[in-house]
Amino acid sequence: MNPALQIIPLLDFPLVAPGDDLAALVAAALHHNQLVLEADDVLVVAQKVVSKAEGRYLRLADVEPGQRAREIAEQADKDPRQVECILRESREVLRVRPGVIIVEHRLGYVMANAGIDRSNMEQPEGDPRVLLLPEDPDRSARLLRKALGAGPGREPMVVINDSVGRAWRMGTVGMAIGCAGLDPLYNQVGERDLFGNVLEVTESAVADELAAAASLVQGQSDEACPVVVVRGARLRPGSGGSQALLRKREMDLFR
Amino acid sequence: MNPALQIIPLLDFPLVAPGDDLAALVAAALHHNQLVLEADDVLVVAQKVVSKAEGRYLRLADVEPGQRAREIAEQADKDPRQVECILRESREVLRVRPGVIIVEHRLGYVMANAGIDRSNMEQPEGDPRVLLLPEDPDRSARLLRKALGAGPGREPMVVINDSVGRAWRMGTVGMAIGCAGLDPLYNQVGERDLFGNVLEVTESAVADELAAAASLVQGQSDEACPVVVVRGARLRPGSGGSQALLRKREMDLFR
Repeated sequence: MNPALQIIPLLDFPLVAPGDDLAALVAAALHHNQLVLEADDVLVVAQKVVSKAEGRYLRLADVEPGQRAREIAEQADKDPRQVECILRESREVLRVRPGVIIVEHRLGYVMANAGIDRSNMEQPEGDPRVLLLPEDPDRSARLLRKALGAGPGREPMVVINDSVGRAWRMGTVGMAIGCAGLDPLYNQVGERDLFGNVLEVTESAVADELAAAASLVQGQSDEACPVVVVRGARLRPGSGGSQALLRKREMDLFR
Repeated sequence: MNPALQIIPLLDFPLVAPGDDLAALVAAALHHNQLVLEADDVLVVAQKVVSKAEGRYLRLADVEPGQRAREIAEQADKDPRQVECILRESREVLRVRPGVIIVEHRLGYVMANAGIDRSNMEQPEGDPRVLLLPEDPDRSARLLRKALGAGPGREPMVVINDSVGRAWRMGTVGMAIGCAGLDPLYNQVGERDLFGNVLEVTESAVADELAAAASLVQGQSDEACPVVVVRGARLRPGSGGSQALLRKREMDLFR
């Protein structure tokens, strides 16, 4: 018996366009990769393909930057129209520096530029677009889970991940912005450690660890592979979404 | 060909005591698990077993808390002797709240309680001990890498991980506190994305993603498994340590 955890890429995943049925694309990719979903499989899906299928593009030509966007764009050395998009997607601006605007996204994530970027998008000459995060990534995850449960295999747990920067550390890591079917915060409080002492406070953010693990395989350039299957993780089922991963503002020491 | 990334636990890893030869224990566990190290394998080792092998225990009975430790202990509702240990291991105290002291560890990590905890340690009745982080986790990683290169398989890349909390997010994730043999920050700046646009800023903290992925398998309670092999990740070799993962203080917006 090999108890290894496996992170299996779905190779040859097609480019995704607005209106595409993402569940159908995933089902086809599973078939193409000769995979049948098993119990406890987790499907980790890159935010970008979810956003693309949902048509979350904005043409910058259609965006009229307000006064605040123009001021922040000056400070951040960014396109005021792009800053306007960032502000519309955010609850609060936390920090502004040249090249970066750290916000609380309307869904609660603290992240740079509200998760909006321009990479991996066709940029029609003279008509640049940006891609927003999905409208409601937890809902997107639930829908994907449900649709795939109707297929030949088992209903997967689903995590939608994005690559984000962090306070204090260099480099991005995969983070869960949506999930369905699993407890994203495996609560080990009250379990016993190797010596029988009750563990004091140990909640593992398993959804974020799955997101980071998948990110190792997904890559971000030529050989990008937006969807992977994580097999062999021992997870707790759960019916909530990813909101449990957000630290409450009043408990947050770093705003 | 199966291109999956695998995270393979070394089952039945023994308890580790001060003075143990960790490389010899890993080599024996590889043999017991019928694994031979291959090129590009990464060995991810939990901080606790490294600290234990290095004898990084302090008996609280031997620790005399200073005035500052007593004051902070009051604020944090902690044992003043434990706080004294935390202060000795830290460059700076960033936040104090009941139950938690966020510091910059002497090695630069921003983390709670300087990585010191009391779980997974024998607690002799009336003689509690704490376990500090390794003296120099990058050196520990280098030594382990070198020692294992003398065995039957290939010299592995090594990551030493710890579970840490984060700003803004609930739950802990695995983080790299030491590494050897790999570039911890896979720099994709200047590569091209799917549409030929040059990627603007995409540095992936692969060592942290490996640490998080391994943490999914290592567990923290009864079935703990401190050492895992990550096989099939496509990593860049590197000769530096984990310091590249630390955001420079002057670039850090969240102190």
